[in-house]
Amino acid sequence: MKTLKRIAILTGGGDCPGLNAVIRSIAKPAMAYFGATVIGIEDGFEGLVEGRHRDLSYRDVSGILHLGGTILGTSNKGDPFHFPVVTPSGIEVQDCSSRAIDHYNDLNLDALFAIGGDGTMHIVDKFSDMGLNFIGVPKTIDNDLASTDVTFGYDSALSVATEAIDRLQTTASAHHRVMVVEVMGRYAGWIALGAGLAGGADVILIPEIPFHWNKVFEFVQERSRRGGRFSIVCVAEGAKPADGDIVVKEKDVRRTDPVRLGGIGELVGKKITEATGLETRVTVLGHLQRGGSPTPYDRILATKYGSMALQLATEGKFGYMVSLRGTDVIGVPVKQAIMKLRTVPPDSQLVLAARAVGTSFGD
Amino acid sequence: MKTLKRIAILTGGGDCPGLNAVIRSIAKPAMAYFGATVIGIEDGFEGLVEGRHRDLSYRDVSGILHLGGTILGTSNKGDPFHFPVVTPSGIEVQDCSSRAIDHYNDLNLDALFAIGGDGTMHIVDKFSDMGLNFIGVPKTIDNDLASTDVTFGYDSALSVATEAIDRLQTTASAHHRVMVVEVMGRYAGWIALGAGLAGGADVILIPEIPFHWNKVFEFVQERSRRGGRFSIVCVAEGAKPADGDIVVKEKDVRRTDPVRLGGIGELVGKKITEATGLETRVTVLGHLQRGGSPTPYDRILATKYGSMALQLATEGKFGYMVSLRGTDVIGVPVKQAIMKLRTVPPDSQLVLAARAVGTSFGD
Amino acid sequence: MKTLKRIAILTGGGDCPGLNAVIRSIAKPAMAYFGATVIGIEDGFEGLVEGRHRDLSYRDVSGILHLGGTILGTSNKGDPFHFPVVTPSGIEVQDCSSRAIDHYNDLNLDALFAIGGDGTMHIVDKFSDMGLNFIGVPKTIDNDLASTDVTFGYDSALSVATEAIDRLQTTASAHHRVMVVEVMGRYAGWIALGAGLAGGADVILIPEIPFHWNKVFEFVQERSRRGGRFSIVCVAEGAKPADGDIVVKEKDVRRTDPVRLGGIGELVGKKITEATGLETRVTVLGHLQRGGSPTPYDRILATKYGSMALQLATEGKFGYMVSLRGTDVIGVPVKQAIMKLRTVPPDSQLVLAARAVGTSFGD
Amino acid sequence: MKTLKRIAILTGGGDCPGLNAVIRSIAKPAMAYFGATVIGIEDGFEGLVEGRHRDLSYRDVSGILHLGGTILGTSNKGDPFHFPVVTPSGIEVQDCSSRAIDHYNDLNLDALFAIGGDGTMHIVDKFSDMGLNFIGVPKTIDNDLASTDVTFGYDSALSVATEAIDRLQTTASAHHRVMVVEVMGRYAGWIALGAGLAGGADVILIPEIPFHWNKVFEFVQERSRRGGRFSIVCVAEGAKPADGDIVVKEKDVRRTDPVRLGGIGELVGKKITEATGLETRVTVLGHLQRGGSPTPYDRILATKYGSMALQLATEGKFGYMVSLRGTDVIGVPVKQAIMKLRTVPPDSQLVLAARAVGTSFGD
Repeated sequence: MKTLKRIAILTGGGDCPGLNAVIRSIAKPAMAYFGATVIGIEDGFEGLVEGRHRDLSYRDVSGILHLGGTILGTSNKGDPFHFPVVTPSGIEVQDCSSRAIDHYNDLNLDALFAIGGDGTMHIVDKFSDMGLNFIGVPKTIDNDLASTDVTFGYDSALSVATEAIDRLQTTASAHHRVMVVEVMGRYAGWIALGAGLAGGADVILIPEIPFHWNKVFEFVQERSRRGGRFSIVCVAEGAKPADGDIVVKEKDVRRTDPVRLGGIGELVGKKITEATGLETRVTVLGHLQRGGSPTPYDRILATKYGSMALQLATEGKFGYMVSLRGTDVIGVPVKQAIMKLRTVPPDSQLVLAARAVGTSFGD
Repeated sequence: MKTLKRIAILTGGGDCPGLNAVIRSIAKPAMAYFGATVIGIEDGFEGLVEGRHRDLSYRDVSGILHLGGTILGTSNKGDPFHFPVVTPSGIEVQDCSSRAIDHYNDLNLDALFAIGGDGTMHIVDKFSDMGLNFIGVPKTIDNDLASTDVTFGYDSALSVATEAIDRLQTTASAHHRVMVVEVMGRYAGWIALGAGLAGGADVILIPEIPFHWNKVFEFVQERSRRGGRFSIVCVAEGAKPADGDIVVKEKDVRRTDPVRLGGIGELVGKKITEATGLETRVTVLGHLQRGGSPTPYDRILATKYGSMALQLATEGKFGYMVSLRGTDVIGVPVKQAIMKLRTVPPDSQLVLAARAVGTSFGD
Repeated sequence: MKTLKRIAILTGGGDCPGLNAVIRSIAKPAMAYFGATVIGIEDGFEGLVEGRHRDLSYRDVSGILHLGGTILGTSNKGDPFHFPVVTPSGIEVQDCSSRAIDHYNDLNLDALFAIGGDGTMHIVDKFSDMGLNFIGVPKTIDNDLASTDVTFGYDSALSVATEAIDRLQTTASAHHRVMVVEVMGRYAGWIALGAGLAGGADVILIPEIPFHWNKVFEFVQERSRRGGRFSIVCVAEGAKPADGDIVVKEKDVRRTDPVRLGGIGELVGKKITEATGLETRVTVLGHLQRGGSPTPYDRILATKYGSMALQLATEGKFGYMVSLRGTDVIGVPVKQAIMKLRTVPPDSQLVLAARAVGTSFGD
Repeated sequence: MKTLKRIAILTGGGDCPGLNAVIRSIAKPAMAYFGATVIGIEDGFEGLVEGRHRDLSYRDVSGILHLGGTILGTSNKGDPFHFPVVTPSGIEVQDCSSRAIDHYNDLNLDALFAIGGDGTMHIVDKFSDMGLNFIGVPKTIDNDLASTDVTFGYDSALSVATEAIDRLQTTASAHHRVMVVEVMGRYAGWIALGAGLAGGADVILIPEIPFHWNKVFEFVQERSRRGGRFSIVCVAEGAKPADGDIVVKEKDVRRTDPVRLGGIGELVGKKITEATGLETRVTVLGHLQRGGSPTPYDRILATKYGSMALQLATEGKFGYMVSLRGTDVIGVPVKQAIMKLRTVPPDSQLVLAARAVGTSFGD
């Protein structure tokens, strides 16, 4: 077993409930059992490139288990291999990996733990190939990482989205309305599917099952005709119709303009109103899904992840990431893990269970 | 004391947590102590005009105290004096009050309890002037009714909005972002002020205090400059700049198109990004604020309201509505109550307290 | 595929969040796809013995997904093979299975779905051996069923217990107190372990790891000595000291007297105070852990369970129960499933992760 | 207006959600507008006697608005006039007020803000009479302070208690049980009354309305006889029967033994079971009611309190405390405020509203 004297931790990509639980469960035992110095890199890989970091004390990593966000900060634009640099002619994307490596070397680390999504895992892979002692800890709200059954953050996002649907049911029912809820999931429909199933949504639209506008309209209208007081439509951010490209254009607007709210949710709402005449309201949950305290499930999973990540480091398994398989957390080579996205299989039990209770996928 | 043999209840206007608690606290004692028949008018005044109603059993009004929405349904377009009627030449607004009165008379009622907002209270007033036995119970999420200190629904909306701000703080902090939250309040800023204060928002923008764009930009930038990791801006739906009419135009879009999400929140987000270069994200809480189970505060207030409304009926005080004054619920003539809106006094203790802890109102 | 024309559902044993979600996901597709008559047996096997049941309508099983408890009622004392019967000489336990079978036959059922814990699964096994078309759906708050990775109800109980620990931390810290929380788990420590880990408890006492009083005292005192403002001790109902049988006696009191609150939690509190002089407070969560709305995780799992249970019936796999393996719900013979209890392996990842972050198990 | 250069804050008595919100709203403006040094006295008056305190930075009082507990610590045994001192012959209660005054003088304070309950207000009064610049800020979970309509902490406790009752309803219903919930309130029944009303309890027992055992038994039995699936009995800690002194004795046990759980709740449960034969379960909420994040209502009230307390200090109104009257926070002389307890008037609107919806008070 390798002894760890100096380790560093960073959090990359979008934030997600459970990051602090991972930090704590790496740092606490490293301090207690190895007497290790634990360094917090600030704002993800951005901080590694720019040399921003601080030593973490035991106190810094205590009492953070239940906190959302990340005490280290994070950044979406911190890929060292494609790093935005201010130049006389404007912002230019450059390969700044050597700066990151220099800082890594300066810190004289036995291991660096990078907690992040697919992008972060790619960077972990590259630096590992260069011989740096990187360990990956996967996180994603969207639950779309291929080599782990579930990642922390997903259950918390599900909890927020389901609570929102629960709330909307009462007001939808009072007004005989169609309520459209747009949830996260650009490429994978796990949140829409999970929250839709848990919240009892009548229609669930996900990227993996392209929908037909008419099927949606008919389903909603049929419910109304048969005396249903309301319908709930749960739409993943990346849901797309089988019969038209309108959405793509709409989404482009939002991509280039992050404060623009409209998107597929708004479009679905608008078209349902036009086609059926039913009163429709749209809610976009957005960043609410990332915020707040992690659920117990996520706190536990995150703690197991951190614990196993530390163990991988003591075994010298660099270039590995932790992964949940069934009820066990194991280590897998990052290289295998980043091959593909984990999307919702259209014939998965979850989809079939949803269909069985009467949910339409608009297909 | 007047004995009540037949009474009816309706809920009008936008739904709001606590409506069912009022229904229960009128219906249960009416049944238990007077053996009264209690009739539920469906979908507000729309149901009175169209003669849609049903008898309520003790079971119907049991177990509903904690439910959001309204078991009777409601409608925003049910003013009998300006009622939308389908005619050969399209939808036409007509005075259908005589149809409402006919149905009222057919039901042979000792009292009709109308639970609703300002619009509903106006209708109560008109029918009372015509000699009908109407009692008003005020409700409004926005808390903007002049003749009651607080109405039920407000505390629940506050609770949703504050929880949202709590959530957004963690994700804002992780990313060094400015988070803009748009909450309800078209004419009065009570929700924005309350939730902003309770959630520790850095900037609160309300209709009563027109804001200056530059003041907002400077405040947010100054916080960032001094190392603040993030700023929270809580904006009432009806907030407006002192220096420009842009918002009004934006809002018109939403008014005519109910599924359109953008509005003042989006505008504030866009302009902050442009002016300061800070990363900004926008969340519009919308219908989440109406939904879900009422808070204990609202359940209690709603129960006291229903209880007093029934008492007013036994005293023959028709044309009255219930009202909270300090810790007591009393009856006041509806006519006095509908005179004016209850907006936030710019020098109220709440505003001063918010300023004292460092909140900017952009003025 | 077997067509199901008449099916029945019952819920046995202690209630648990998610029961209604299972009922719904069996009944809805049975009605929609087979046009089946769905009969609800009341109060578990008690209702089967006594012939109490009612037909369920589509409406009865709609809108119940998020409700805790069970719309069918349940009973702890309904084993048909050991049924309490009132006789002239008092209550006598008799074999009433033939009465249950008679009622089963009268109902002319294609399948009977029994949702319950270990006791219920034993009864399912016995009736299946007699040729009755029983399908089992396992539920247990305690998570102690051997043949399924997790059962619904556990995540909800965890959520309540973790929230309670979160709450107690603030008050413990304000007063420099030791807070003892007793949670459910008579034979298995899953809730104590999960909630203790998720809530950041300092000491976790579970039945699987007998604890030493002195180790607990020393740990708590050492924390206080090093400036820790408080300690949280999370105790499973069935935790027991390695060095003494005192607890057993205390627990007997509660067993015979269900309203008696004191138990291992109180004992731990008392002894810590005596031994360390630290101010200690005890909270027993009790029935709070069973109540309330199921978490999204439990709603989804319960829905998948119901869905698969129905499929097992269409395949004629009677004597089977549903079971979670990894991410899949499968069918397993009940006979295999009831062999043993699923207790916490003392060297499981969960225990090791807890130890790694500094938790003491008092051993 | 007096300028404040050095101020101190302490929190005394049992902790309560909102304490940190008060601290923040005194300290932040004092720092920002007066450049004042703000000193935090540790663990209430205990810290004043023992000279334990620390300077608070702006950072210390930021981000604490939503935190339960108190960052300053508190103590139940810190009355300087009756202070427990370790002497050779054991612990002895002595007058240590001169030590407190010495420390007060050493700190050279312009004002000291004491946040606490009735006991704290008495101490504020005594020190004010001696010419010290004390300002009182009342807090009490129990809501039993006479000179303020409501205090912060109450709404949060109500929220916890109501949520618990909501939870217990589902499990009570599943099992046809009587659920007894004991809530706080030794001398005043506000929590039991409020949570009982908000949670729809069937029986509410409070100190102000002595109950008759038979009335309770009959009411519960009658409900069961008429097909009610369950009953919820909400009991204040200090509830007492009109016909017997048994409770007092039981309660004494708990008073002298703080980890002893049984009390009036357990007694009520035991006696209902004995008298009616109905299955009964007891839950004691205890410290859960103090913990966790304050509700928006309490955060707002606490902020207004702190704000007004600071203003009183600038006006030189020492010996005053803040107080809520209607919707305004004002200053009142502490001396007037400590005269009497604010108990529930048996003919208050709240009691009448509860009776109207069918609640029994056992009288």
